[in-house]
Formats: sequence, structure tokens, C-alpha cells
Amino acid sequence: MSTVAIDLNADLGEGFGRWSLTDDSGLLDVVTSANVACGFHAGDPETMRRVCEIAAERDVAIGAHVAYRDLAGFGRRAMDVPARQLAGEVAYQVGALEAFARAAGTVVSYVKPHGALYNRTVHDQEQAQAVVDGVVLAGARPILGLPGSRLLAAAEAAGCEPVPEAFADRAYLADGTLAPRGREGAVVEEADAVVSRSVQIAHGRPLATLDGDPLTVSARSLCVHGDTAGAVDLAVRVRAALEEADVDVRSFLS
Amino acid sequence: MSTVAIDLNADLGEGFGRWSLTDDSGLLDVVTSANVACGFHAGDPETMRRVCEIAAERDVAIGAHVAYRDLAGFGRRAMDVPARQLAGEVAYQVGALEAFARAAGTVVSYVKPHGALYNRTVHDQEQAQAVVDGVVLAGARPILGLPGSRLLAAAEAAGCEPVPEAFADRAYLADGTLAPRGREGAVVEEADAVVSRSVQIAHGRPLATLDGDPLTVSARSLCVHGDTAGAVDLAVRVRAALEEADVDVRSFLS
Amino acid sequence: MSTVAIDLNADLGEGFGRWSLTDDSGLLDVVTSANVACGFHAGDPETMRRVCEIAAERDVAIGAHVAYRDLAGFGRRAMDVPARQLAGEVAYQVGALEAFARAAGTVVSYVKPHGALYNRTVHDQEQAQAVVDGVVLAGARPILGLPGSRLLAAAEAAGCEPVPEAFADRAYLADGTLAPRGREGAVVEEADAVVSRSVQIAHGRPLATLDGDPLTVSARSLCVHGDTAGAVDLAVRVRAALEEADVDVRSFLS
Amino acid sequence: MSTVAIDLNADLGEGFGRWSLTDDSGLLDVVTSANVACGFHAGDPETMRRVCEIAAERDVAIGAHVAYRDLAGFGRRAMDVPARQLAGEVAYQVGALEAFARAAGTVVSYVKPHGALYNRTVHDQEQAQAVVDGVVLAGARPILGLPGSRLLAAAEAAGCEPVPEAFADRAYLADGTLAPRGREGAVVEEADAVVSRSVQIAHGRPLATLDGDPLTVSARSLCVHGDTAGAVDLAVRVRAALEEADVDVRSFLS
Repeated sequence: MSTVAIDLNADLGEGFGRWSLTDDSGLLDVVTSANVACGFHAGDPETMRRVCEIAAERDVAIGAHVAYRDLAGFGRRAMDVPARQLAGEVAYQVGALEAFARAAGTVVSYVKPHGALYNRTVHDQEQAQAVVDGVVLAGARPILGLPGSRLLAAAEAAGCEPVPEAFADRAYLADGTLAPRGREGAVVEEADAVVSRSVQIAHGRPLATLDGDPLTVSARSLCVHGDTAGAVDLAVRVRAALEEADVDVRSFLS
Repeated sequence: MSTVAIDLNADLGEGFGRWSLTDDSGLLDVVTSANVACGFHAGDPETMRRVCEIAAERDVAIGAHVAYRDLAGFGRRAMDVPARQLAGEVAYQVGALEAFARAAGTVVSYVKPHGALYNRTVHDQEQAQAVVDGVVLAGARPILGLPGSRLLAAAEAAGCEPVPEAFADRAYLADGTLAPRGREGAVVEEADAVVSRSVQIAHGRPLATLDGDPLTVSARSLCVHGDTAGAVDLAVRVRAALEEADVDVRSFLS
Repeated sequence: MSTVAIDLNADLGEGFGRWSLTDDSGLLDVVTSANVACGFHAGDPETMRRVCEIAAERDVAIGAHVAYRDLAGFGRRAMDVPARQLAGEVAYQVGALEAFARAAGTVVSYVKPHGALYNRTVHDQEQAQAVVDGVVLAGARPILGLPGSRLLAAAEAAGCEPVPEAFADRAYLADGTLAPRGREGAVVEEADAVVSRSVQIAHGRPLATLDGDPLTVSARSLCVHGDTAGAVDLAVRVRAALEEADVDVRSFLS
Repeated sequence: MSTVAIDLNADLGEGFGRWSLTDDSGLLDVVTSANVACGFHAGDPETMRRVCEIAAERDVAIGAHVAYRDLAGFGRRAMDVPARQLAGEVAYQVGALEAFARAAGTVVSYVKPHGALYNRTVHDQEQAQAVVDGVVLAGARPILGLPGSRLLAAAEAAGCEPVPEAFADRAYLADGTLAPRGREGAVVEEADAVVSRSVQIAHGRPLATLDGDPLTVSARSLCVHGDTAGAVDLAVRVRAALEEADVDVRSFLS
């Protein structure tokens, strides 16, 4: 019987009106947690509604994928948003998504910052706190983030369960941070490597880092990317490999 | 002892970021229901939060003032939004406001369409139904609108309490509709007339119409406008006159 | 020697930030006029710049594809924009595109309304005039539109050359208007039919209409759609068939 | 005969749709250069058009007040916009304003960054260069900025005339930078002090700094703020005092 469990999360609903990006229905067959765009970097109401409906049907947990207000930059441009404004913007997004989650018979179970807000709140204490304040404003719930980040520390202090996640397709440095995208080898391209790293992470086995030293990434969730060609196929392979390796793939909530 | 009661509602939170329009705190001292802009025609998260906090403190009911997605036109430009999209946009706005209402210890008690959406849903069956669908999606609750409108009929059919409202500063036609703004006399400018018409409406006494025939406007709420100079003073006078005339000014919910 | 000539136009640059829709480079190898999105329904500055650069290199005429301010609806939702506002919004879009056209060593040669604005200005005199006013404000130039539309009549009256265009992939009614998309047969799906209709239009031969009666569409430009799978392949086939049928495919400006 | 000259510039057109902020017509009676919002932090097309028309009538030079794309934050939140994107966004704004300037019979004579973009390009070489690249893309012209800023250095290197400006209502540090707004004394509140400092700056006389040491601010333009109560009155007083002190108040272009 399996004693190791991991959650699989993916960014979904990243279209806007006429534009779409992610194969939401395909990924919702594979993952156990759906980070749903809430309208600030992507995510129109109709898409939010549909993703919540499918997620609820398939018993996938719904998370609010909150972002800077930046459709033109897809939330990838860090912004110096004053703390109180940022908290308000986070709560607004969570609330909007909550309407669709409730309509589908479920709730927004957790929050994960997107893009530049995710990266910024690894080190920026003020914005990390502001995001947590916004979550608390909209109702305390678990927050997904990078192990060791300011965000997860602030979440814990505020009574929001911190949920550390890992990336099987990103290289790490020895200090536990992700290698910057610009650096050679920062993105793991080969599907086989992504699959085997997923199993290593789930079993708590050390990964090679770009610095050479091995690193054990302590994570309760594994992020699979949804906005690339072959995203669904890769997610299917990751899930199958985890199950073959006696890992119980299930939501971190269960 | 008073046997006649009426609600006083006003449009609040109609700023956006650096811009403000309404004296929210001043009006929240007078009205019993606050129609709060939800970010589509106006209303940034910080303003929504503050208005909800003050409304909760002063026991003013909070309503979602939902609108077309049109900051540039302040929601005053009718849009041919397909029904399902419109329902989604309404639910999104209600959900976002709900986060701030709940944070302030209360809830979104009702919904009122703003501007062009208000006017369009008087006659447009499809959009009226779409607004109601959106409200139901986000959780059925009372809907404020024009007596005799398609919106209120659709609300009733869907199990959302229809709440007819009147405007003391707008002239009516004999058929019960508002005189179009372009027509002479359509807007009642003199404060004394607005005050006396308020009392007439509350007591169910007939008003003169632009067509000549008298009209009894059946309303449970009275809308006072907040975006004009002297708005607070006028609202204070209306409220005082109502109370002097033995009208119980209180939320339609109580 | 060929005596019949026609322009081929396509809607390009219809992405926004992270999202893309049209194979701009592929289509710019085939068409002679590029309708470039200007930021209101689609079109971020970087995309506008790139499309202008490629168009200039390949000697494709650049047109401003002006639209309602509606990213969420992709400009497909008709809006009651007051005339003066609409004229301003049109001029704004033309001016913004002009910066990139000039940077690429060319100019904005014409204007074509997009989506709901295109359809509305077929019959709505006020908006048709407002679009033309906006074009004149930004500098009079040719306007592309439906033969018989209010838009083209207003263009002519204002000294902007009216350029009638036809759609090879849309069915017509006997009165010369396009069959509404909802109607069966309104969209011509088979590539062979689109190709043969293109040649018929270019040669001024009558087309069958949905009403049965034949119709001769008088057009100086032919619109090929760019936002469907296989759009480039179809455009290549249309162009090849036109050239084989002794039609000179060239910009209506030349 | 006066041998000392200075330009007076103000930020104008800072409304958006229903919202307004600045007394554009009042300030256009006083200043010699108008920094016109171009739609990214403020500035709808109708306002841009009107400001350009009045400016042209009164022979006030028109400048593009370019900003980050951030209506919600009024362009006051620094953003990590990649260089090529930023250049495109600057060119887009200049081009849009150019349409209205040309319609009014004049041109966009210069560019000045707004808010957070102004502050960031004092020290950030990449963004300073990107702003200048955007200006060059839309047609090289003078750039207004802080003396000693990266922006003005990049402007000069690119062949855009750098125009240093001073602020009479802001305190300086001994190194020539503005005292941060948070610091006590950073904003000069008393009208008399603003007026006398204006004359000192124009005559090249040293100002007291917050560090104690005197500083001579070398400036060809003086910025008067338009978004405060009494802005027009203060601007009138500044201009009158300058003229009384034999300073020729005229555009830096003339």
C-alpha cells in the first residue's frame, strides 16, 4: 500500500475572450489541483465558469491563480503595487472565482500567485505579506508557493496552511531556488527527464542541481505546465510514472 | 406610529484608482442601501473594500452595482453582450464584491444593474434574463430595478425578490417609464421639487407626468443620485422630509 | 495582358501580449493589404510594430483595423458609443498604428472597421459618419467596407475614397448583404468553393445567393480570413487561382 | 530686455471618460508646454482631442506624457516592462496623440515620461534607453526629464534634444535628485515659497536643499502641478512672478 502522496497542479483557464492557451479539459483529466486565472493576467468569466464546472465534476481542487493587473503582460511584469492595493486586488480575484466555484457546487480551496507575483513574493516581504493579507481578507485558506519563500512564511504566520510545491521541468540551484530562466539548463526540456524528476521529487530523493550539489526538494505538490505543446501528454506520462512508482496522486487537501 | 416605509439607495464607490466621484462616506450617513461599483464601470478593490467597511459599520445594506465591462464609457454605452457572457460578467462582479462584504462582516444583499445595463434590461428580455442568470449563478438575492421592467419580471420568475425603485429627480411618462434624458423637463433640477416628490412617492401619492396624466409609482426604494455637487445635502434633505412625513426610512430588507 | 485586378486583404496582428491568433508572416506572403489590429479589440504595440515591418518589407499596404474598445469581446459586441467619442477612438487607433507604419518607412494607407463596428456601420448612419469623422481627424484616406454600406457612402461624401470589398467565404443575400452567420449556408466551408467564388467575384461574374437569385458583387478587394486553421493555405490557393484566371492581384492603391 | 527665459510645463488631460482631474482649460492659459496624457495612465481620446485643440489655439506646445500601461494605478506603480515592449508602448502613445495634435494643426513637440516611468528612468539605464528608443521609433524629438538622469543622457546620445526641468514645489537633495516624497519637507506646500523658488530656478540662483548645502538647478523648463486644488491660481502667481523678475516665459522650443 502506498505511503507517499503528491498533488499535481497546473495553471488553467489562461485564455481571455477570443484567445485561448491551455487545454483545460485535457489537463483536468490528469491534475488534482487547478490554478484558475481570475481575470487579471488572463481568465474571462465564461472560461472561469467552465473550468470550475469541469473541475467540480472531476473532483479536482480549485485554486485562485492571482496575479498583477496586467493583461498586456500576462502578469509576467513585476509591479510595485502598494501593499494595501495589492491585498485588495488579491481578494477581488479570489472573490470573483469563488462565485463560479460555488455555482459549481464547490469552493476555492487554495490560492497560488501567478508569474511575476509568484517570483516577487519569494523574496519581497511586503508583497508576500500583502498577498497573504488579501487571502485572509477573502477568507483564510492554503497558499501554494516555493519552499522557503517569504510567501509561505507569511502564510503560516497568518494561519493559512503553506503548501510547498516543486517543478519537475525547472532546474534548481543548491540553495533551493529555481535557476533563472536565462541560464543554460534552467528549463528541463526532455520529457523523460521531467518524468523521472517527478518521481524523485515525490519520493523525496535528491535532485542534481545546476551547482552540482544534490538537493532534496520538499514538496507536497508538483506543478506541471499547461501552456506548451504536448502539455497534456507530458502530464499524463508524469501521472502514470508516479502511480507506477507507488505514489498516491491526490489533492494536498485530501 | 409610522406605517409607511421606504428604502433610500445611492450609487457609491464610483471612483477608480486616482479618480473619485462620489462622497461615499457622506452618503453612507444618509442612505439605507449602497449600490457599490464592482470594477467594470468603476470601483477599484480598495474603494470597494472601504465602502463595504463603512456600510457594515453603519448598518447600510450592500448591493452589487453590476455593469457592462466599460471603464472608458462608465458603463453608459449599451453593449450587445451575448447572454452567457453577460451572466458570467454579472456573477464575476457579484463574487468580487462579496469578498469585501464578507471581510466587513456582512454580505451582498442585493444586485442592481448600472447605467446602460439598467436601461437596456427594462425592455430587452434576453439581457434581463442574462442578468438574472448571473445573479442566480452567484447566489439568488433581491434585484433592484424599474417597476414593470423585464428585469424585475425575470427576477421574480427565477426566485429573486424583485424590488421596484423610484427616482425623485427624474420625470415619468404616463406609462410608468422614465422620460428620456434628452426631453425637456426629464431631470428635476430644483431641490424642493425632488424633496416633495420623494414624500409623494413614499406615500403612494400620484406624481404629475410629462404627459399630463398623474401616475402612482409603486416603489419600495428611492434612488438618490450621488455623483452631483450637493448630492449629500440633497439626500439629507430628502431623508429629513421623509421622516417628518412619518415615513420610516429603512432598508427594504428589514 | 491582364485587365482585371483585385486586392487581397486579411485581418492581421490579432494577438494581444501572450496570445496570438493569426499567422501574420504567412499571410503577409500572400495578401496585398494588411488590416492591422490597433489595440482596441486586439493588437499590442510589439505585434503592431512587427506586422508593419514585415508588411513594409514585402510591399503590402497597411490599413488600420479600427474597432470598439472591447478586448474582452474581441470587438464583436456592438456598442452604443456616442458619435464624438467614437470618432476620437477611431483617430486614436489610426494615429497609434501610424507611428509603427512610419517607423517601418511607410504609412497607414487605409482604414477598415472590425467586427461589430463593421457590421453596425453598414446600416447605422450615425456611427458610419462617426467612423469617417475619426478617419478624417487622423487624416483622410481610403475606407474599406461593404458595397452599399452607409460607411462607404459617408466616406465618399467626406472625400475618403470608398473601397468596396467582397467575401469569398460568406454567402450573400439577393440584396447584396451578407447572410447572417446563424443562417444555414451562411459560411462557405469548402475550400474549392471559396477558391472558385474568388475568381467569380474578381471577374465580376454573378454568384448564387441564399435567396436563389444571382448577384454580382462589385468589389475592388477580396477579404480572406486569417484566424482559422489552414488560413494561409487557403489564401495561397485563392491567390494562385486568381493569377491563373488572369486576375492581377495587387493593392487597390496601385 | 529680458535675457533669461524659461518654459512652464504642466500635466494635462489626466481624466478618463467620466472622471476628470485637471483644469485643462485654466492651465492652458498659463503654461507654455502641455504634457498630455495618452491613454495609458489617463487620457481618453475625447480629452486628448480637446486639450490639443485648446493648446493649438493658445500656441502652447504639446508633449506626449507617456506612461506605463496602468490605469488602475495612474501610472504610479513601477513595472518591469521588457525593453522592446516598453519602446513599443511609448511609440504607440506618441502616435495616438500625434493624430490629435495634427488634427489641431500642430504636432507633438516633445515627450515626457509620467509618474513611475519618470522616476524609474532617472536611474534605470535599460528603461531609459527603451523610452528613448520608443521616441525615436515614433520620430525623434526633444525629451523632458530630470537633470542628470539616465533618460536625458540616452536622449542626447540618440539625437533627441534633452530638456532638463525643475520642480519649484519639490525639495532637492544636495546631489541634485528630488527628496523622496516620504521625507519631511519633501513637498513645498506654501505658495509663497513655490513662487520665490520658481524665480530662483529661472535665474539660476542656488536653492537650499534638505541636506543643507545650496544647489543650483540647471533647468530649461519648470513643472507646475495641475492636479491639486488651487493649481491654476498657483500657476498664475508663478508666471506673474517670473515675468516681474524679467524672466521671459516661453516654450523651450522657441
